[in-house]
Formats: sequence, structure tokens, C-alpha cells
Amino acid sequence: MAAKESSKSSEAYPMKGGDGLYSYTKNSYYQREIANAAKGLINEAIAEELDFKISPSSNTFRIADLGCSVGPNTFFSVQNIVEAVELKYQSQGLNSRVPEFQVFFNDHALNDFNTLFTSLPPDRRYYAAGVPGSFYGRLFPDESLFFVHSSFALHWLSKVPEEVVDKSSPAWNKGRIYYSNAADEVAKAYSTQYAEDMECFFHARAQEIVCGGLIVLIVPGRPNGTPHSHVISNRTYDLVGSCLMDMAKKGLVSEEKVDSFNIPIYNASPQELEAAIDRNGCFSIEMMASLPPVKSTSPTPPSGHALSMHMRAALEGLIKEHFGHGILDELFDSYAKKFDASPIMGPGTVLVALLKRKATG
Amino acid sequence: MAAKESSKSSEAYPMKGGDGLYSYTKNSYYQREIANAAKGLINEAIAEELDFKISPSSNTFRIADLGCSVGPNTFFSVQNIVEAVELKYQSQGLNSRVPEFQVFFNDHALNDFNTLFTSLPPDRRYYAAGVPGSFYGRLFPDESLFFVHSSFALHWLSKVPEEVVDKSSPAWNKGRIYYSNAADEVAKAYSTQYAEDMECFFHARAQEIVCGGLIVLIVPGRPNGTPHSHVISNRTYDLVGSCLMDMAKKGLVSEEKVDSFNIPIYNASPQELEAAIDRNGCFSIEMMASLPPVKSTSPTPPSGHALSMHMRAALEGLIKEHFGHGILDELFDSYAKKFDASPIMGPGTVLVALLKRKATG
Repeated sequence: MAAKESSKSSEAYPMKGGDGLYSYTKNSYYQREIANAAKGLINEAIAEELDFKISPSSNTFRIADLGCSVGPNTFFSVQNIVEAVELKYQSQGLNSRVPEFQVFFNDHALNDFNTLFTSLPPDRRYYAAGVPGSFYGRLFPDESLFFVHSSFALHWLSKVPEEVVDKSSPAWNKGRIYYSNAADEVAKAYSTQYAEDMECFFHARAQEIVCGGLIVLIVPGRPNGTPHSHVISNRTYDLVGSCLMDMAKKGLVSEEKVDSFNIPIYNASPQELEAAIDRNGCFSIEMMASLPPVKSTSPTPPSGHALSMHMRAALEGLIKEHFGHGILDELFDSYAKKFDASPIMGPGTVLVALLKRKATG
Repeated sequence: MAAKESSKSSEAYPMKGGDGLYSYTKNSYYQREIANAAKGLINEAIAEELDFKISPSSNTFRIADLGCSVGPNTFFSVQNIVEAVELKYQSQGLNSRVPEFQVFFNDHALNDFNTLFTSLPPDRRYYAAGVPGSFYGRLFPDESLFFVHSSFALHWLSKVPEEVVDKSSPAWNKGRIYYSNAADEVAKAYSTQYAEDMECFFHARAQEIVCGGLIVLIVPGRPNGTPHSHVISNRTYDLVGSCLMDMAKKGLVSEEKVDSFNIPIYNASPQELEAAIDRNGCFSIEMMASLPPVKSTSPTPPSGHALSMHMRAALEGLIKEHFGHGILDELFDSYAKKFDASPIMGPGTVLVALLKRKATG
């Protein structure tokens, strides 16, 4: 049971903790905007799809946010779900049956849970718990969850595909750190890893979620048919690779170090996500959509500096572990300059999927 | 619901985090010995008192350890409970009905959950979650727990009684930092605070624990009828006060600073604990005992140095907050010397209580 399944090998890539200048807390406006845009869709999903038969006899409605990071976006999303469920009960005249809520904030054990816990909203209307571990393995008891939310987390693979760092493989990703501008074999290795990870993800969730329970997934994605190299967010990773190769040419990092570094992120297409859900077979797709481009409400302009800060919050841990702390400032300074010299334009593509756990048997 | 009750004012006194020289992780041998001594009692309690009727339809057996600190003792205690429950099912030929376990590790939000989560036993047979917050308020949904364990936590009051730092009160605790060698009014203020805290504790647990569910409490205590000033662990706190007053006389800290500092710990007698349980009315006392003196298995001899390290692990955060970091080394050095010059002898008194949630109505 728990031990075996949750010990599945999976690397941890925590977002930058604390609340300092480069922290995820202070550099996740984009994710917040998306959460805001997804709010309407989630409200609608709960109003239309939430089935009262799943209400537990114990009157506790259990919610999990998978890959929650350190906040504040997770608190915003969770609060929205709680309010939408309360509203649904009230609109049906079931005020006296409004459940208690228990919310499980999940991320890797190396996530900064200390920051998460000390910044929990004091006026929250739910019991809070933190759950450490990879969402590619089991995290919760059988049939214990009613609503699973995951935003900007499922594009992180459980690990870098082994072939892309294997010099003897045709998928060896020399001189690059990502698949989108690389040989087809590299992209194939990434998409295969994605498919394997999704198999683990849906297998675990199928056991944990009650029949009728809902999953909302929000992931950066690739429009069907669009080449990897045209996807905006892929190009922002390629730019990191280009900066690293510049530094290698200047002798600031070894080229071999760059060759052995790859970003374990995959931006899947709706078709790829659908295929994974179909292979699992336990969930029906109630809705899948691309979010409309979000209007920026960030207090900083969308400059190279702003994007560089955003990328640093997400990637600093990964880069530091491989290259050491010394290269960070130089890398992200040159990133900002390169971006300003040749901006990557256009809105991000974000997939939202609403899934329902089918009845078994 | 959750928000209001869990926002009850309560101070946080986390044990020293991390795993450094003065950490709780490395300086909690005594608590471990006690946990070991309590193991037999807990096994017996589960074998005799655990009622299969409480088995949930969902087949998840939920356990909470309240005031878990950072480990490793909490892992030891929880593992023991899980094994005892499994054994009970197996001994009754109910192997196929052995439940899944979900364990909630609770402590204040300022507890070092990052250390706790990264040191979870990899081979654990339970789903783990951390729950931040004071156990003097609500932490869990209604009727969601089957077994509550709390070891060396419930002697921490929710706060220092206000009167003892009020210069105009007869309970003003001038020149002392604890009640056991102080005026009767001081001891009365402490015992009143204890009674209020226990009222909150049992009120919250009565809602959270299913009928038939068990609580095991392990607390340092005072034998009925023994004066506060004779209790061994009280004398170890009085010694801290004496060292602080020495430092005040040397001008190393201000006397006023010492006057305004008090340790929010109360070592209650079995009678006081029983009275609190009776006032609440929702729990039956299945067993209450003093643990026999434990034989030391600590790798360090019971020297002034060892005790000083133990006290520092527990009190460092509290003292640092009030006096600043600068006094810690001097204070605990002088503590070790004073203890060696005049050791405090005799075993600690530890109370173990087993309570069962009564049926309602």
C-alpha cells in the first residue's frame, strides 16, 4: 500500500521558497492571473458537475491542491473552490447540509512548507493540512478526495528522460537543455516520459478520488498541431539554453555541464492529455479548453527583467543544483537582456481540463 | 466553524528545528525513552479498548499526533500505533479488513515542518500529512479521528498567565520565571490557565474524535499531594531562573527582563488532569498511570552538559525571543555548571492516560 506506491522514484524541483526578491511567492503573478481566469470555469464546473451523491456521510468535503508550491495562488484557488461548493449547496436550499472542508496542500517534501503554513489565510473556512510527496505516486487513502485541483504543476515531469543525457543514445541532447529546438528523438523521449508520468498520475488519482469526484487541471500547453518550437513558453526555456551556451563559449561554465543539464518540463497538447486520460479509463472528460489570453495585471511591466525574475523563481533550484550558485545572477541578467533585444511575443497557451471519476464496476 | 475556533489566541513555542547540535531531533532521548516505556501500555490499550465498530466505511484509520515536533520520536510512536492496530485486526482473523492509515502530524505553524517532512520514514505504511496550528483549538473536521496521541506537549500552556507579568497583580512573579518556587498566587494563576487550556483541548477533541475513538496522553506530571517545588522537572526550570538571576546580578541581562519572562509550562497532577476530563464529560478514563522510572539509554551520561543540551533544545526559541540570541551560550554553560555542582536527583514523573470518546446522546 502507501509505502510501495509512494516511494516511486521522482525528482523534486521545488519552487524558490521564502518570500525574498526571487521567491515564487513574489514572482507568480502570471499563475495568479491564470487562476483568476480559471475561476469562472471552476465555478461553472462545480455548479453543473458536482454530484450531491458524493457527499460523504461524515460531512467532510476533502479537497487536494497538487503541486501547491508556497502560495499565495494556492490559497486563492482553494478559497474559490470552497466558496463555489458552499454556493451550490445554498442555491439548492441545502444550507443546513453545507459540509465542513478539509484542504490538503501537496507538493514535494523539499517544498517550503514552513512558508506555506505560516502564510495560511487566518480567516480560512477549512481545516488545512500539508501532504509531502510526488503526485506521480499515491498520496491519499482510497476514495478519500472529492475535488482535486492542480495548477501549473503537471508540466513538470517526474525526471529528465534518461536517454537525453546518455551520450550513446540518438536522443542525446548535446548543446541544448530542452526538447523544443532539438532533434526529434529528444522530443520523443520527452513525450514518452510525459505519457509514463500521466499513467502514474491518473492511476493514483483513480484510487484516491470518490466516484463522481472532480479533477481540475490547469497546465501550460501546446495547441494541437503546433510545432514544439513555436510554443511561447517552450521558447522561453530555449532562451535559457541559449544563455547557458553563451556562458559556455565565454568559459563561464563547461560545455559538458550544459550538455548534461535538461529541464524536466513538457508542454503537452490537448490530444496528448486526452490520450493519457483515455488510456487510464477511469475518468470522463467533462470539459477541455484553452484559456483565452490573459490581460496582464502584474505590477511590473512585461519586460525582460520581469520575465527573467519569473523564470528564476521557477528554475533557480534546478540550475543551482547542477551548476552551483555562482552563475545565477549572470545567467538571469543575460536572459533579461537577450529577451529585451528580441522579445518573445504572444499569449501563453493554457489548457484547462475538468474530469470526473467514473463509477466503477 | 474552522476559522473561528482555530484562530483562538495561542502562542507558539516550537522546539529547536533542523538537525544541528542543539536541535530537538538530537536532544530528545529522554522523550524517546518514555515513548519506549509507553509502548507496552499503548499496545495493550489498542488490543483491549479499540472497538471495531469505529472502523470507518471508507476503511481509513486516521491517527493524529498532537505536538509532534520534528521527529524522530513522533515516527516511533506512530509506527507503534499502526502496528498495534494491524496486529489487532490480524489476531481477530480480520486480515482482509486491515484498514489504510492516514497520520496527521500536528504542531504549531512555526514548527519546522520542512525537517519533519524530509525525515519521514521512507518505508512507512501510512499516508502522512502535516497539520499546522494550536491543539487548543479545532484542527480537524467533525468525527474524523480514530486515535489521538500526544506526548510531551500538553504541559505547554497556550500562553503565560497574564497576571504573572502584571506588576499590579498579587500574582506578579518578580525575580522568578516559573511558578514552582514562587508565591501561591503565581501557582494559582498557572493552574487556572492549565484548567482553561484543558477545557479548550477536550472541547475540540470531543468534536474531532469518533465515538469509541481513543486518546493517549503522555505528560510530565506532579504526583498527587507533592508540592510543586519538589517536582524534579520543575526544579530543572527553577534552575534556569536561578541562572538568569545570576546573569542579572552580573549585569548581563536586566532584572526587569527576567521579571517579565515566564516559562509557559505546567506540570499537572493526575487529580488536575482527571478534573479537566470530568468537567468536559465526553471522555471516559480507561487508564491513568505514572510510568515507572526509565532506565537511561542515552549515549551521553546524565551530566550537567547533557541536561543543559536537553533544556536548550526545548527552551532556546522562547529565551531567544525574549532576551535575544546573545545570552544563550553563557546561560546554558552556567546551567550545566550549576547542575554539576548540585545535581537534581531522582526519576521524572510521567503520566500516561488512556481516554475513550463516549457515545453521545
